[in-house]
Amino acid sequence: MSDLGQSLYAMAEQLIALENRLKTLEEGKTKVAFSALIETGGAYGPFKTDVTLAFNKVLTNIGGAYDSSTGVFTAPVTGVYHFSFFYHAGGKHKARLTLFKNDKKIVKSSNHQTGSNTADNGGNAVVLQLQQGDKVYVSMPENHHVWATSISTSFSGFLLS
Amino acid sequence: MSDLGQSLYAMAEQLIALENRLKTLEEGKTKVAFSALIETGGAYGPFKTDVTLAFNKVLTNIGGAYDSSTGVFTAPVTGVYHFSFFYHAGGKHKARLTLFKNDKKIVKSSNHQTGSNTADNGGNAVVLQLQQGDKVYVSMPENHHVWATSISTSFSGFLLS
Amino acid sequence: MSDLGQSLYAMAEQLIALENRLKTLEEGKTKVAFSALIETGGAYGPFKTDVTLAFNKVLTNIGGAYDSSTGVFTAPVTGVYHFSFFYHAGGKHKARLTLFKNDKKIVKSSNHQTGSNTADNGGNAVVLQLQQGDKVYVSMPENHHVWATSISTSFSGFLLS
Repeated sequence: MSDLGQSLYAMAEQLIALENRLKTLEEGKTKVAFSALIETGGAYGPFKTDVTLAFNKVLTNIGGAYDSSTGVFTAPVTGVYHFSFFYHAGGKHKARLTLFKNDKKIVKSSNHQTGSNTADNGGNAVVLQLQQGDKVYVSMPENHHVWATSISTSFSGFLLS
Repeated sequence: MSDLGQSLYAMAEQLIALENRLKTLEEGKTKVAFSALIETGGAYGPFKTDVTLAFNKVLTNIGGAYDSSTGVFTAPVTGVYHFSFFYHAGGKHKARLTLFKNDKKIVKSSNHQTGSNTADNGGNAVVLQLQQGDKVYVSMPENHHVWATSISTSFSGFLLS
Repeated sequence: MSDLGQSLYAMAEQLIALENRLKTLEEGKTKVAFSALIETGGAYGPFKTDVTLAFNKVLTNIGGAYDSSTGVFTAPVTGVYHFSFFYHAGGKHKARLTLFKNDKKIVKSSNHQTGSNTADNGGNAVVLQLQQGDKVYVSMPENHHVWATSISTSFSGFLLS
Protein backbone atom coordinates (compact mmCIF):
# COMPACT_ATOMS: atom_id res chain seq x y z
CA MET A 1 0.00 0.00 0.00
CA SER A 2 1.15 3.57 -0.64
CA ASP A 3 1.99 5.94 2.21
CA LEU A 4 -1.19 7.86 1.46
CA GLY A 5 -3.19 4.63 1.53
CA GLN A 6 -1.74 3.70 4.93
CA SER A 7 -2.51 7.13 6.38
CA LEU A 8 -6.03 6.87 5.04
CA TYR A 9 -6.47 3.46 6.62
CA ALA A 10 -5.22 4.69 10.01
CA MET A 11 -7.58 7.65 9.89
CA ALA A 12 -10.53 5.42 9.05
CA GLU A 13 -9.78 3.40 12.17
CA GLN A 14 -9.59 6.56 14.27
CA LEU A 15 -12.94 7.67 12.85
CA ILE A 16 -14.58 4.40 13.88
CA ALA A 17 -13.11 4.66 17.41
CA LEU A 18 -14.35 8.24 17.75
CA GLU A 19 -17.81 7.30 16.54
CA ASN A 20 -18.05 4.51 19.12
CA ARG A 21 -17.10 6.87 21.93
CA LEU A 22 -19.63 9.39 20.66
CA LYS A 23 -22.35 6.72 20.58
CA THR A 24 -21.59 5.83 24.22
CA LEU A 25 -22.01 9.46 25.21
CA GLU A 26 -25.23 9.83 23.24
CA GLU A 27 -26.74 6.69 24.76
CA GLY A 28 -25.81 7.96 28.19
CA LYS A 29 -28.15 10.85 27.56
CA THR A 30 -31.33 8.79 28.02
CA LYS A 31 -33.78 11.26 29.47
CA VAL A 32 -35.96 10.09 32.32
CA ALA A 33 -37.73 12.61 34.55
CA PHE A 34 -41.16 12.81 36.12
CA SER A 35 -43.28 14.77 38.59
CA ALA A 36 -46.81 14.01 39.71
CA LEU A 37 -49.28 15.23 42.31
CA ILE A 38 -51.95 13.28 44.15
CA GLU A 39 -55.17 15.18 43.56
CA THR A 40 -58.20 13.19 44.65
CA GLY A 41 -59.91 15.97 46.64
CA GLY A 42 -59.42 16.65 50.36
CA ALA A 43 -57.78 14.14 52.65
CA TYR A 44 -56.50 10.83 51.25
CA GLY A 45 -56.95 8.25 53.98
CA PRO A 46 -56.94 7.03 56.64
CA PHE A 47 -57.41 3.52 55.18
CA LYS A 48 -57.46 0.08 56.83
CA THR A 49 -54.46 -1.15 54.84
CA ASP A 50 -51.15 0.22 53.56
CA VAL A 51 -51.53 1.88 50.17
CA THR A 52 -49.17 2.93 47.41
CA LEU A 53 -49.95 6.53 46.52
CA ALA A 54 -51.06 6.79 42.91
CA PHE A 55 -50.01 10.37 42.20
CA ASN A 56 -52.61 10.84 39.49
CA LYS A 57 -52.02 14.36 38.16
CA VAL A 58 -48.91 14.02 36.01
CA LEU A 59 -46.93 17.24 35.50
CA THR A 60 -43.98 15.73 33.62
CA ASN A 61 -43.18 12.19 32.46
CA ILE A 62 -40.20 12.27 30.08
CA GLY A 63 -39.47 8.68 29.10
CA GLY A 64 -42.82 7.43 30.41
CA ALA A 65 -41.30 5.44 33.29
CA TYR A 66 -43.80 6.67 35.89
CA ASP A 67 -47.23 4.94 35.88
CA SER A 68 -49.85 7.29 37.28
CA SER A 69 -52.44 4.52 37.59
CA THR A 70 -50.30 2.63 40.13
CA GLY A 71 -47.90 5.30 41.42
CA VAL A 72 -44.95 3.10 40.50
CA PHE A 73 -41.79 4.32 38.73
CA THR A 74 -39.94 1.52 36.92
CA ALA A 75 -36.30 2.23 36.00
CA PRO A 76 -36.06 2.01 32.18
CA VAL A 77 -32.25 1.80 32.32
CA THR A 78 -29.66 0.93 34.95
CA GLY A 79 -28.30 4.14 36.45
CA VAL A 80 -28.25 6.65 39.27
CA TYR A 81 -31.56 8.40 39.99
CA HIS A 82 -32.76 11.17 42.29
CA PHE A 83 -36.20 11.01 43.92
CA SER A 84 -38.10 13.35 46.23
CA PHE A 85 -41.56 13.56 47.74
CA PHE A 86 -43.36 16.25 49.73
CA TYR A 87 -46.67 16.16 51.55
CA HIS A 88 -49.13 18.36 53.37
CA ALA A 89 -51.50 16.82 55.92
CA GLY A 90 -54.13 17.97 58.36
CA GLY A 91 -53.37 17.26 62.01
CA LYS A 92 -56.54 15.23 62.60
CA HIS A 93 -54.73 11.97 61.82
CA LYS A 94 -51.14 10.80 61.68
CA ALA A 95 -49.23 11.29 58.41
CA ARG A 96 -46.40 9.12 57.13
CA LEU A 97 -44.99 8.54 53.66
CA THR A 98 -42.21 6.07 52.92
CA LEU A 99 -40.28 5.82 49.65
CA PHE A 100 -39.65 2.21 48.68
CA LYS A 101 -37.14 0.64 46.28
CA ASN A 102 -38.80 -2.65 45.34
CA ASP A 103 -39.91 -4.00 48.75
CA LYS A 104 -37.29 -2.10 50.78
CA LYS A 105 -38.01 1.08 52.77
CA ILE A 106 -35.47 3.78 51.82
CA VAL A 107 -36.50 7.18 53.28
CA LYS A 108 -39.50 8.37 55.24
CA SER A 109 -41.24 11.48 56.53
CA SER A 110 -43.95 11.52 59.18
CA ASN A 111 -46.02 13.59 61.61
CA HIS A 112 -47.95 12.89 64.76
CA GLN A 113 -51.65 13.51 65.17
CA THR A 114 -51.64 17.14 66.27
CA GLY A 115 -55.29 18.23 66.33
CA SER A 116 -57.97 19.24 63.83
CA ASN A 117 -56.90 22.87 63.52
CA THR A 118 -53.27 22.22 62.66
CA ALA A 119 -51.42 21.07 59.58
CA ASP A 120 -48.14 19.34 58.96
CA ASN A 121 -45.59 19.23 56.17
CA GLY A 122 -42.98 16.66 55.38
CA GLY A 123 -40.74 15.36 52.65
CA ASN A 124 -37.51 13.62 51.87
CA ALA A 125 -35.12 12.99 48.98
CA VAL A 126 -32.63 10.33 47.98
CA VAL A 127 -30.10 9.37 45.31
CA LEU A 128 -30.41 5.68 44.38
CA GLN A 129 -28.46 3.35 42.13
CA LEU A 130 -31.12 1.34 40.28
CA GLN A 131 -30.97 -1.69 38.03
CA GLN A 132 -33.21 -1.70 34.96
CA GLY A 133 -36.66 -2.79 36.15
CA ASP A 134 -36.28 -1.70 39.78
CA LYS A 135 -39.45 -0.13 41.12
CA VAL A 136 -39.68 3.03 43.23
CA TYR A 137 -42.89 4.28 44.83
CA VAL A 138 -44.30 6.08 47.86
CA SER A 139 -46.43 4.19 50.35
CA MET A 140 -48.64 5.23 53.28
CA PRO A 141 -49.41 2.90 56.22
CA GLU A 142 -52.90 2.07 57.45
CA ASN A 143 -54.55 4.68 59.68
CA HIS A 144 -52.51 7.55 58.24
CA HIS A 145 -53.53 10.27 55.81
CA VAL A 146 -52.19 13.07 53.61
CA TRP A 147 -53.74 16.04 51.89
CA ALA A 148 -54.51 15.12 48.28
CA THR A 149 -55.61 18.44 46.89
CA SER A 150 -54.32 21.97 46.26
CA ILE A 151 -51.10 20.79 44.52
CA SER A 152 -49.51 20.05 47.91
CA THR A 153 -48.42 16.40 47.82
CA SER A 154 -45.92 15.46 45.12
CA PHE A 155 -43.51 12.76 43.92
CA SER A 156 -40.63 13.49 41.51
CA GLY A 157 -37.64 11.70 40.09
CA PHE A 158 -35.01 11.91 37.41
CA LEU A 159 -32.04 10.05 35.99
CA LEU A 160 -28.71 11.71 36.76
CA SER A 161 -26.89 11.65 33.42
CA MET B 1 -11.67 10.21 -9.13
CA SER B 2 -9.06 7.77 -7.87
CA ASP B 3 -9.91 5.11 -5.27
CA LEU B 4 -7.90 7.06 -2.72
CA GLY B 5 -9.77 10.21 -3.61
CA GLN B 6 -13.12 8.47 -3.16
CA SER B 7 -12.09 7.09 0.23
CA LEU B 8 -10.94 10.53 1.27
CA TYR B 9 -14.23 12.04 0.19
CA ALA B 10 -16.23 9.43 2.15
CA MET B 11 -14.14 10.06 5.25
CA ALA B 12 -14.62 13.81 4.99
CA GLU B 13 -18.38 13.26 5.00
CA GLN B 14 -18.10 11.00 8.06
CA LEU B 15 -16.05 13.68 9.81
CA ILE B 16 -18.75 16.29 9.18
CA ALA B 17 -21.46 13.92 10.47
CA LEU B 18 -19.44 13.18 13.63
CA GLU B 19 -18.83 16.86 14.24
CA ASN B 20 -22.54 17.64 13.99
CA ARG B 21 -23.37 14.92 16.52
CA LEU B 22 -20.64 16.21 18.83
CA LYS B 23 -22.01 19.76 18.52
CA THR B 24 -25.48 18.51 19.49
CA LEU B 25 -24.00 16.89 22.61
CA GLU B 26 -22.00 19.97 23.53
CA GLU B 27 -24.99 22.28 23.12
CA GLY B 28 -27.00 19.93 25.33
CA LYS B 29 -24.50 20.73 28.04
CA THR B 30 -25.77 24.27 28.51
CA LYS B 31 -25.31 24.83 32.21
CA VAL B 32 -28.13 26.51 34.05
CA ALA B 33 -28.34 26.30 37.83
CA PHE B 34 -29.24 28.74 40.57
CA SER B 35 -29.96 29.02 44.29
CA ALA B 36 -31.06 32.08 46.19
CA LEU B 37 -32.28 32.98 49.67
CA ILE B 38 -34.71 35.68 50.70
CA GLU B 39 -32.91 37.71 53.34
CA THR B 40 -34.72 40.92 54.14
CA GLY B 41 -34.59 40.63 57.94
CA GLY B 42 -37.23 38.95 60.11
CA ALA B 43 -40.67 38.11 58.78
CA TYR B 44 -41.56 38.87 55.16
CA GLY B 45 -45.25 39.73 55.10
CA PRO B 46 -48.11 39.64 55.67
CA PHE B 47 -48.94 42.00 52.79
CA LYS B 48 -52.27 43.19 51.38
CA THR B 49 -51.59 41.71 47.94
CA ASP B 50 -49.99 38.59 46.48
CA VAL B 51 -46.25 39.01 46.00
CA THR B 52 -43.57 37.22 44.02
CA LEU B 53 -40.70 36.45 46.37
CA ALA B 54 -37.54 38.20 45.24
CA PHE B 55 -34.96 35.85 46.72
CA ASN B 56 -32.31 38.53 46.94
CA LYS B 57 -29.23 36.76 48.30
CA VAL B 58 -27.90 34.81 45.32
CA LEU B 59 -25.77 31.79 46.20
CA THR B 60 -25.33 30.45 42.67
CA ASN B 61 -26.50 31.68 39.27
CA ILE B 62 -24.75 29.70 36.52
CA GLY B 63 -26.09 30.97 33.20
CA GLY B 64 -27.63 34.06 34.81
CA ALA B 65 -31.22 32.93 34.19
CA TYR B 66 -32.44 33.86 37.68
CA ASP B 67 -33.19 37.55 38.28
CA SER B 68 -32.78 38.38 41.96
CA SER B 69 -34.46 41.77 41.60
CA THR B 70 -37.76 40.17 40.57
CA GLY B 71 -37.42 36.56 41.80
CA VAL B 72 -38.18 35.29 38.30
CA PHE B 73 -36.26 32.50 36.55
CA THR B 74 -36.54 32.65 32.76
CA ALA B 75 -35.64 29.46 30.89
CA PRO B 76 -32.71 30.31 28.59
CA VAL B 77 -33.20 27.12 26.55
CA THR B 78 -36.03 24.65 26.01
CA GLY B 79 -35.46 21.64 28.25
CA VAL B 80 -36.30 19.74 31.41
CA TYR B 81 -35.63 21.58 34.68
CA HIS B 82 -35.79 20.75 38.39
CA PHE B 83 -36.97 23.36 40.92
CA SER B 84 -37.35 23.30 44.69
CA PHE B 85 -38.20 25.79 47.41
CA PHE B 86 -38.12 25.59 51.20
CA TYR B 87 -39.41 28.00 53.82
CA HIS B 88 -39.42 28.61 57.53
CA ALA B 89 -42.23 30.69 59.08
CA GLY B 90 -43.36 31.79 62.49
CA GLY B 91 -46.77 30.54 63.58
CA LYS B 92 -48.22 34.02 64.14
CA HIS B 93 -49.60 34.16 60.59
CA LYS B 94 -50.41 31.68 57.87
CA ALA B 95 -47.63 30.66 55.49
CA ARG B 96 -48.05 29.57 51.89
CA LEU B 97 -45.68 29.51 48.94
CA THR B 98 -46.69 28.45 45.44
CA LEU B 99 -44.34 27.76 42.56
CA PHE B 100 -45.68 29.11 39.29
CA LYS B 101 -44.83 28.29 35.67
CA ASN B 102 -45.86 31.45 33.83
CA ASP B 103 -49.33 32.14 35.29
CA LYS B 104 -50.06 28.52 36.27
CA LYS B 105 -49.78 27.19 39.85
CA ILE B 106 -47.62 24.03 39.84
CA VAL B 107 -46.76 22.98 43.44
CA LYS B 108 -47.43 24.50 46.82
CA SER B 109 -46.56 24.24 50.50
CA SER B 110 -48.49 25.87 53.34
CA ASN B 111 -49.10 26.05 57.07
CA HIS B 112 -51.93 27.23 59.26
CA GLN B 113 -51.63 30.00 61.81
CA THR B 114 -50.42 28.06 64.84
CA GLY B 115 -49.57 30.65 67.50
CA SER B 116 -46.77 33.08 68.23
CA ASN B 117 -44.50 30.59 69.95
CA THR B 118 -44.43 28.00 67.19
CA ALA B 119 -42.72 27.75 63.83
CA ASP B 120 -43.46 25.90 60.63
CA ASN B 121 -41.44 24.50 57.78
CA GLY B 122 -42.49 23.62 54.27
CA GLY B 123 -41.20 23.01 50.80
CA ASN B 124 -41.80 21.26 47.55
CA ALA B 125 -39.99 20.24 44.35
CA VAL B 126 -40.90 19.59 40.75
CA VAL B 127 -39.50 18.54 37.39
CA LEU B 128 -40.85 20.73 34.57
CA GLN B 129 -40.52 20.72 30.80
CA LEU B 130 -40.01 24.35 29.85
CA GLN B 131 -39.94 26.19 26.55
CA GLN B 132 -37.31 28.88 26.08
CA GLY B 133 -38.65 32.02 27.76
CA ASP B 134 -40.99 30.26 30.23
CA LYS B 135 -40.94 31.93 33.62
CA VAL B 136 -40.79 30.14 36.99
CA TYR B 137 -41.14 31.90 40.33
CA VAL B 138 -42.44 31.50 43.88
CA SER B 139 -45.42 33.55 45.01
CA MET B 140 -47.03 34.22 48.40
CA PRO B 141 -50.71 35.20 48.77
CA GLU B 142 -51.94 38.26 50.68
CA ASN B 143 -52.11 37.89 54.45
CA HIS B 144 -49.42 35.21 54.58
CA HIS B 145 -45.79 35.45 55.63
CA VAL B 146 -42.48 33.58 55.69
CA TRP B 147 -39.26 33.98 57.58
CA ALA B 148 -36.80 35.98 55.45
CA THR B 149 -33.68 35.75 57.52
CA SER B 150 -31.22 33.20 58.89
CA ILE B 151 -30.71 31.43 55.51
CA SER B 152 -33.98 29.55 55.96
CA THR B 153 -36.12 30.32 52.91
CA SER B 154 -34.66 29.29 49.56
CA PHE B 155 -35.42 28.79 45.86
CA SER B 156 -33.26 26.60 43.60
CA GLY B 157 -33.38 25.22 40.09
CA PHE B 158 -31.24 23.56 37.46
CA LEU B 159 -31.40 22.25 33.92
CA LEU B 160 -31.29 18.47 33.71
CA SER B 161 -28.77 17.80 30.98
CA MET C 1 2.66 17.76 -1.25
CA SER C 2 -0.04 16.38 -3.55
CA ASP C 3 -3.65 17.59 -3.32
CA LEU C 4 -4.60 14.26 -1.76
CA GLY C 5 -1.80 14.59 0.75
CA GLN C 6 -2.99 18.07 1.72
CA SER C 7 -6.59 16.89 2.13
CA LEU C 8 -5.39 14.00 4.26
CA TYR C 9 -3.37 16.36 6.44
CA ALA C 10 -6.35 18.68 6.96
CA MET C 11 -8.55 15.74 7.91
CA ALA C 12 -6.02 14.45 10.42
CA GLU C 13 -6.10 17.86 12.09
CA GLN C 14 -9.89 17.80 12.17
CA LEU C 15 -9.78 14.32 13.73
CA ILE C 16 -7.51 15.53 16.53
CA ALA C 17 -9.74 18.54 17.19
CA LEU C 18 -12.83 16.29 17.35
CA GLU C 19 -11.13 13.88 19.71
CA ASN C 20 -10.18 16.68 22.08
CA ARG C 21 -13.76 17.94 22.17
CA LEU C 22 -14.99 14.40 22.78
CA LYS C 23 -12.51 13.95 25.63
CA THR C 24 -13.80 17.16 27.25
CA LEU C 25 -17.34 15.83 27.07
CA GLU C 26 -16.34 12.44 28.48
CA GLU C 27 -14.44 13.96 31.39
CA GLY C 28 -17.42 16.16 32.15
CA LYS C 29 -19.35 12.99 32.87
CA THR C 30 -17.57 12.32 36.18
CA LYS C 31 -20.23 10.72 38.32
CA VAL C 32 -20.53 11.88 41.90
CA ALA C 33 -23.71 11.19 43.88
CA PHE C 34 -24.44 10.15 47.45
CA SER C 35 -27.23 9.70 49.97
CA ALA C 36 -26.92 8.73 53.62
CA LEU C 37 -29.12 8.49 56.70
CA ILE C 38 -28.23 9.07 60.32
CA GLU C 39 -29.29 5.93 62.15
CA THR C 40 -27.97 5.81 65.66
CA GLY C 41 -31.22 4.88 67.42
CA GLY C 42 -33.77 7.36 68.81
CA ALA C 43 -32.93 11.00 69.32
CA TYR C 44 -29.49 12.32 68.37
CA GLY C 45 -28.69 15.09 70.83
CA PRO C 46 -28.99 17.44 72.55
CA PHE C 47 -25.23 17.79 73.04
CA LYS C 48 -23.15 20.44 74.81
CA THR C 49 -21.28 21.41 71.64
CA ASP C 50 -22.00 21.84 67.94
CA VAL C 51 -21.65 18.57 66.03
CA THR C 52 -21.29 17.62 62.38
CA LEU C 53 -23.83 14.92 61.64
CA ALA C 54 -22.12 11.70 60.58
CA PHE C 55 -24.87 10.22 58.45
CA ASN C 56 -23.69 6.68 59.00
CA LYS C 57 -26.04 4.52 56.93
CA VAL C 58 -24.86 5.02 53.36
CA LEU C 59 -27.48 4.36 50.68
CA THR C 60 -25.43 5.50 47.67
CA ASN C 61 -21.87 6.79 47.31
CA ILE C 62 -20.92 6.91 43.62
CA GLY C 63 -17.41 8.30 43.41
CA GLY C 64 -16.78 7.80 47.13
CA ALA C 65 -16.68 11.54 47.92
CA TYR C 66 -18.89 11.26 51.02
CA ASP C 67 -17.17 10.06 54.21
CA SER C 68 -19.71 8.40 56.50
CA SER C 69 -17.31 8.37 59.46
CA THR C 70 -17.19 12.19 59.54
CA GLY C 71 -20.30 13.22 57.60
CA VAL C 72 -18.16 15.34 55.28
CA PHE C 73 -18.50 15.44 51.49
CA THR C 74 -15.31 16.56 49.72
CA ALA C 75 -15.71 17.73 46.12
CA PRO C 76 -13.56 15.42 43.96
CA VAL C 77 -13.74 17.82 40.99
CA THR C 78 -14.53 21.49 40.50
CA GLY C 79 -18.13 21.83 39.38
CA VAL C 80 -21.74 22.61 40.20
CA TYR C 81 -23.37 20.37 42.82
CA HIS C 82 -26.84 19.95 44.32
CA PHE C 83 -27.29 19.12 48.01
CA SER C 84 -30.35 18.50 50.17
CA PHE C 85 -31.06 17.42 53.74
CA PHE C 86 -34.24 16.48 55.56
CA TYR C 87 -34.88 15.81 59.23
CA HIS C 88 -37.53 14.60 61.61
CA ALA C 89 -37.38 15.64 65.26
CA GLY C 90 -39.42 15.24 68.40
CA GLY C 91 -40.78 18.46 69.90
CA LYS C 92 -39.13 17.95 73.28
CA HIS C 93 -36.07 19.96 72.21
CA LYS C 94 -35.25 22.49 69.53
CA ALA C 95 -34.10 21.19 66.16
CA ARG C 96 -31.79 22.94 63.72
CA LEU C 97 -29.60 21.70 60.91
CA THR C 98 -27.32 23.95 58.86
CA LEU C 99 -25.56 22.98 55.65
CA PHE C 100 -22.00 24.33 55.54
CA LYS C 101 -19.60 24.89 52.63
CA ASN C 102 -16.19 24.79 54.30
CA ASP C 103 -16.74 27.05 57.34
CA LYS C 104 -19.59 29.09 55.82
CA LYS C 105 -23.29 28.57 56.66
CA ILE C 106 -25.27 28.18 53.42
CA VAL C 107 -28.86 27.01 54.16
CA LYS C 108 -30.68 26.03 57.34
CA SER C 109 -33.87 24.47 58.64
CA SER C 110 -35.08 24.65 62.22
CA ASN C 111 -37.95 24.14 64.63
CA HIS C 112 -38.85 25.46 68.05
CA GLN C 113 -39.33 23.30 71.10
CA THR C 114 -43.01 22.38 70.77
CA GLY C 115 -43.71 19.79 73.48
CA SER C 116 -43.11 16.11 74.09
CA ASN C 117 -46.10 14.88 72.12
CA THR C 118 -45.36 16.69 68.90
CA ALA C 119 -42.89 16.20 66.07
CA ASP C 120 -41.33 18.50 63.51
CA ASN C 121 -39.98 18.15 60.01
CA GLY C 122 -37.56 20.32 58.13
CA GLY C 123 -35.20 20.36 55.21
CA ASN C 124 -33.55 22.52 52.62
CA ALA C 125 -31.68 22.25 49.31
CA VAL C 126 -29.08 24.23 47.43
CA VAL C 127 -27.06 24.36 44.23
CA LEU C 128 -23.41 25.24 44.90
CA GLN C 129 -20.38 25.92 42.72
CA LEU C 130 -17.53 24.05 44.41
CA GLN C 131 -13.79 24.00 43.86
CA GLN C 132 -12.04 20.65 44.07
CA GLY C 133 -11.47 19.93 47.76
CA ASP C 134 -14.31 22.09 49.08
CA LYS C 135 -16.12 20.43 51.97
CA VAL C 136 -19.89 20.27 52.47
CA TYR C 137 -21.56 18.92 55.60
CA VAL C 138 -24.56 19.31 57.90
CA SER C 139 -24.07 20.62 61.42
CA MET C 140 -26.32 20.85 64.49
CA PRO C 141 -25.79 23.43 67.25
CA GLU C 142 -25.48 22.60 70.94
CA ASN C 143 -28.74 21.97 72.78
CA HIS C 144 -30.60 20.87 69.65
CA HIS C 145 -31.58 17.39 68.51
CA VAL C 146 -32.93 15.40 65.55
CA TRP C 147 -34.47 11.98 65.15
CA ALA C 148 -31.77 9.52 64.11
CA THR C 149 -33.80 6.43 63.43
CA SER C 150 -36.56 5.16 61.16
CA ILE C 151 -34.89 6.39 57.93
CA SER C 152 -36.11 9.92 58.60
CA THR C 153 -33.03 12.17 58.61
CA SER C 154 -31.02 12.24 55.40
CA PHE C 155 -28.26 14.06 53.47
CA SER C 156 -27.85 13.79 49.70
CA GLY C 157 -25.80 15.39 46.97
CA PHE C 158 -24.77 15.02 43.36
CA LEU C 159 -22.66 16.65 40.68
CA LEU C 160 -24.72 18.35 37.98
CA SER C 161 -23.08 17.15 34.77
